[in-house]
Amino acid sequence: MATLGFIEYGDASPEVRAVFDDIMRTRNTDWINNFWKAIAHDPATLRRTWESIREIMAPGALDPLTKEMIYLAVSVTNQCGYCIASHTAAARKAGMTDAMFQELMAVVGMANETNRLVTGYQVEIDERFKTK
Amino acid sequence: MATLGFIEYGDASPEVRAVFDDIMRTRNTDWINNFWKAIAHDPATLRRTWESIREIMAPGALDPLTKEMIYLAVSVTNQCGYCIASHTAAARKAGMTDAMFQELMAVVGMANETNRLVTGYQVEIDERFKTK
Amino acid sequence: MATLGFIEYGDASPEVRAVFDDIMRTRNTDWINNFWKAIAHDPATLRRTWESIREIMAPGALDPLTKEMIYLAVSVTNQCGYCIASHTAAARKAGMTDAMFQELMAVVGMANETNRLVTGYQVEIDERFKTK
Amino acid sequence: MATLGFIEYGDASPEVRAVFDDIMRTRNTDWINNFWKAIAHDPATLRRTWESIREIMAPGALDPLTKEMIYLAVSVTNQCGYCIASHTAAARKAGMTDAMFQELMAVVGMANETNRLVTGYQVEIDERFKTK
Amino acid sequence: MATLGFIEYGDASPEVRAVFDDIMRTRNTDWINNFWKAIAHDPATLRRTWESIREIMAPGALDPLTKEMIYLAVSVTNQCGYCIASHTAAARKAGMTDAMFQELMAVVGMANETNRLVTGYQVEIDERFKTK
Amino acid sequence: MATLGFIEYGDASPEVRAVFDDIMRTRNTDWINNFWKAIAHDPATLRRTWESIREIMAPGALDPLTKEMIYLAVSVTNQCGYCIASHTAAARKAGMTDAMFQELMAVVGMANETNRLVTGYQVEIDERFKTK
Repeated sequence: MATLGFIEYGDASPEVRAVFDDIMRTRNTDWINNFWKAIAHDPATLRRTWESIREIMAPGALDPLTKEMIYLAVSVTNQCGYCIASHTAAARKAGMTDAMFQELMAVVGMANETNRLVTGYQVEIDERFKTK
Repeated sequence: MATLGFIEYGDASPEVRAVFDDIMRTRNTDWINNFWKAIAHDPATLRRTWESIREIMAPGALDPLTKEMIYLAVSVTNQCGYCIASHTAAARKAGMTDAMFQELMAVVGMANETNRLVTGYQVEIDERFKTK
Repeated sequence: MATLGFIEYGDASPEVRAVFDDIMRTRNTDWINNFWKAIAHDPATLRRTWESIREIMAPGALDPLTKEMIYLAVSVTNQCGYCIASHTAAARKAGMTDAMFQELMAVVGMANETNRLVTGYQVEIDERFKTK
Repeated sequence: MATLGFIEYGDASPEVRAVFDDIMRTRNTDWINNFWKAIAHDPATLRRTWESIREIMAPGALDPLTKEMIYLAVSVTNQCGYCIASHTAAARKAGMTDAMFQELMAVVGMANETNRLVTGYQVEIDERFKTK
Repeated sequence: MATLGFIEYGDASPEVRAVFDDIMRTRNTDWINNFWKAIAHDPATLRRTWESIREIMAPGALDPLTKEMIYLAVSVTNQCGYCIASHTAAARKAGMTDAMFQELMAVVGMANETNRLVTGYQVEIDERFKTK
Repeated sequence: MATLGFIEYGDASPEVRAVFDDIMRTRNTDWINNFWKAIAHDPATLRRTWESIREIMAPGALDPLTKEMIYLAVSVTNQCGYCIASHTAAARKAGMTDAMFQELMAVVGMANETNRLVTGYQVEIDERFKTK
């Protein structure tokens, strides 16, 4: 179903395999998901996307679980089916419990609601919220 | 600029004032922001929205700071100017540092990118991501 | 601020003036709003857009007020500031009261919320909702 | 396929059953759809969502059919597959004919088009559309 | 699965057939896709939509391939599954190679990312970008 | 107004200045726009974003003008005010004439319309559009 199909590990060029290996090493897995196999047709995009993800999702001021939950919140807001499936799995792997999932969904739903209420009522930004 | 204008505390009915008081008590503030003053023209919506927010944003499996950052992530994804301003302030009040803010934005940006890459490439969901 | 500026009635070509005249006649007004003046730089787009609007927004199985409220609901969902301002005015002109406006906003907010809840929970469509 | 699966009526706690009963009573149906069964894993979200829907969708300044059509308009704009299926059914149940449906879709399509035209041309809001 | 089902060529009224014939003539094909067959239940919408598409997608200052790629870029941004499938096919027919497709997707992904970064950081528009 | 303010060239660290210099060299300009100055507070995000943009927007199977117009199309779809202003300027610099701009807007508007029509009518994807 993927537009260009998948590049499987066994058929991958050295350049693509290097990225696949780094994904598996970093994530401590032994398989490559469909997203990476699909964009692997464009090795530059595969490399650039993986390097960005690896840097952005690493532990920092925010821990990996928080980052995965933010990723899931965006994916739900954007109605991206693949992303919701894969990032729900990733967040669970990072430690998201069912209770966390439920609270996350409640916040995402409510934010999508009030985002529209405030804009629909054409509310101007409070002076004290404005930065210099 | 707000479509129906604002209901100021001094002009509010007892029903609206009760909600304003609860907002200030719960948030430990002495003022009401423009959003609440705008939707206060519809007391049912004001009450329902506040009670939902109060329940959803309370500490639980996720702490209030994480919840505020999720709220901000959704608001940025939806391009809601008022929400970004007010929830950036709320997240900071809950403990978000500049470093956390920057990492949050990086995740939001990346998620909005890969949400489109995977859908643009028409990637089917991996079997192992599907729930029963 | 408009990218190509505005075509004012006095400066308009006969082709553009014909559309401006039809807008004012159909809407029973004596002025042309900024949207029409901006896209008038592309007479084909001006004509095509006006003719579509005139046909779509005419009374039919749905009355003009209902149609304007739907237009406003979409504009709020899409966070389009100009559209919210102009269609709030149009809906009011067509008969929308403050009470109708408030109920409309409540529905729009709630729909944006449950749209995300159902997708976030990856809920499959009930068999009985599926058409043949 | 739902992330947490469904809570069926027979397996529901008294708290969840009370909400299920109220849904069926209010809607005059004898079954619970997948959306409610999915979010029932979070009884607080189930209760809060149902109570909001019940209040918001009740007859008021806008009748239930108009409200359902607005809900459908938002769901289409947001590309929510489940919501389009379930709210098309709900709107039909409330009295939406095929002719109404077709006109609704035409308005939703056109609004999504002009929302982008006006923003793409960077059109400033007319002074007379601005509220005080 | 389509809400109203399809109008097949053989069952079409003269009015609908005239549009179907024009589609096939203009596109040099011998078949009508599901989208047209679905909206054909509303002949006015079918006619208006086809005439708009025919005018908008014709060669002009932009060539048809560029226009199809823009159409695909929007469809990916909006997460429209049908549109991505049909416009990928249309763009390929107009001359889009795999390399073009990959570069298109990379731009769409990046644009969706920076759109959120700039709004999340609440960046004001540079004076030199503002039109008169 | 930017959440963290701007890092001006004169105040920039060597790491940030290196990116600023590369932007100006690559784009043949003598100034840095507000977007780069805002995200420069996060040097990793500045570097990663610039390197991605530089790679993605370089001439390839698609020329830079086509890429800028796609970027603008996405920005309009997402209603991003800053992006529309800056990418309209960038596209013009790359050679976009007013006629091209107008045709681009017409395509973006129409795509946003039909994206909703097809999903609203719940149209299933034609078999011949599906890839293997």
